[in-house]
Amino acid sequence: MIYYMGMVGIAAFAVTGVMAAGKKNMDIFSIVLLGMITALGGGTIRDILIDANPVFWMADLTYLWVALAASVVAFFLIRLITPLFKLLLYVDAFGLALFTVLATQKTSAMGFSGPVAVLMGLVTGIAGGMIRDVLTQRQTLILAREFYATPALIGAICVSVLDTAFPGHAYSHLYATGLIFILRGAAIQWGLYYPGWLMLK
Amino acid sequence: MIYYMGMVGIAAFAVTGVMAAGKKNMDIFSIVLLGMITALGGGTIRDILIDANPVFWMADLTYLWVALAASVVAFFLIRLITPLFKLLLYVDAFGLALFTVLATQKTSAMGFSGPVAVLMGLVTGIAGGMIRDVLTQRQTLILAREFYATPALIGAICVSVLDTAFPGHAYSHLYATGLIFILRGAAIQWGLYYPGWLMLK
Amino acid sequence: MIYYMGMVGIAAFAVTGVMAAGKKNMDIFSIVLLGMITALGGGTIRDILIDANPVFWMADLTYLWVALAASVVAFFLIRLITPLFKLLLYVDAFGLALFTVLATQKTSAMGFSGPVAVLMGLVTGIAGGMIRDVLTQRQTLILAREFYATPALIGAICVSVLDTAFPGHAYSHLYATGLIFILRGAAIQWGLYYPGWLMLK
Repeated sequence: MIYYMGMVGIAAFAVTGVMAAGKKNMDIFSIVLLGMITALGGGTIRDILIDANPVFWMADLTYLWVALAASVVAFFLIRLITPLFKLLLYVDAFGLALFTVLATQKTSAMGFSGPVAVLMGLVTGIAGGMIRDVLTQRQTLILAREFYATPALIGAICVSVLDTAFPGHAYSHLYATGLIFILRGAAIQWGLYYPGWLMLK
Repeated sequence: MIYYMGMVGIAAFAVTGVMAAGKKNMDIFSIVLLGMITALGGGTIRDILIDANPVFWMADLTYLWVALAASVVAFFLIRLITPLFKLLLYVDAFGLALFTVLATQKTSAMGFSGPVAVLMGLVTGIAGGMIRDVLTQRQTLILAREFYATPALIGAICVSVLDTAFPGHAYSHLYATGLIFILRGAAIQWGLYYPGWLMLK
Repeated sequence: MIYYMGMVGIAAFAVTGVMAAGKKNMDIFSIVLLGMITALGGGTIRDILIDANPVFWMADLTYLWVALAASVVAFFLIRLITPLFKLLLYVDAFGLALFTVLATQKTSAMGFSGPVAVLMGLVTGIAGGMIRDVLTQRQTLILAREFYATPALIGAICVSVLDTAFPGHAYSHLYATGLIFILRGAAIQWGLYYPGWLMLK
């Protein structure tokens, strides 16, 4: 069940990646590369950092095929899906929530400490989009005022704290996933952002 | 024999890397760093992704010295070699063909599946140039309309399919190398590119 | 002793990283991410390249907390520390000198050859700042005319040569650290740079 939801998340990452960074006159190869980097990049960086071998999409090629298929579909149906961009952002938010929580859990289970697990959850959620932005000369989320990484960070901390306080509690991950989704959803819907005193003046 | 051809390819990667991205007023350190990143970057990323230890140029320092020497030569003789740029592009195309095929083969031999081997062939051929472009604020090949990565991808698929269909067939790699070289050569000579229906509109 | 000096260096990397790349209207999350990437990025790339597991800040979380705390302080006290920028550049130069030498030594001790150790010393000193510059769309030191990487390179070569010529000589690292600090300090004070014949024309 979580596995299939993960595939939906991977597809959403790929499609929103293509829609956000794809530009007129890009060829299909560039578009598919963009989509795949967005979808698989974060988890790849995480697996390299924690030395998880092989990288997740080499161990289970389904991730690769789903990212590839979603990117090809995004290329050919870009006009049809453009009106659905906001809906897709919510599916992307769901992917962000799911992968952040799963990655925090995976890193923790490999014996890393809480703060490292939290950072790996964050990296999994945001690094793919950051590589995509660098390769397409867009502003990365460090410069752009998008409330994307912060929900992931809060959720990852939430998983880590709940797992330490209530080890083996089955609902911790569900709560954290919901929290990330709600925070990111609020940002999509109402443009949630940092208050002024947490901005550099 | 293949080893020495590989060194010619490394040198060509370094020199064309310097010629493509080097700008007036760059110091020799930056130029040499550029050349070495272009020449060694792709294989380095591949070795990190497939966890091949040590990285190829740490295992055999010859790669490092050849990339270093070629970059220094490119710095001092930039005026002399500028008229030879097109010739060097063909040597670079030969390097692209050779490294893509060798990397696909290496990854396959380490037990990875065909699609992973194909992607690692592609990464080896293109990632060095992409890092160089990011560090020098040039358009990476995702944005630039250069027919460079596609020949590598087609050739890597060709190696993988032939090796599966005719295991142990000695000429598969020769055919694939030739195919990449011819496709990339055609792009250099006639500006080969994607047809309109494979471009984002 | 060296350990505590290392922490001062990490804090200086984080603070100067924030001061160099931080822009008005960045939120605290982006600022802290910037500072941490600048402080920890170089050593992380080194550990991935030489396959040192776990990455240094995962093995000893103190690095992580110091980088985090220094970045948060830089965010809230940015106005107070801005007049101290030149002083901080000297502390940063000290960090550069220390980490370059320690990394060259660490890589050497892991059995890698001299040239690889030199490159890893260089990577440790400069890669964090380069990732920061890429993520914030600033010119990396390949394009910028800053005399930052060259002192590190010279010092790393110095460590490697002295360690080969006089194995076990206790002062080699001290000399090399001093050399990097003096060269970089001269660059901060008088704008030291390459002579014209080592610039691309």
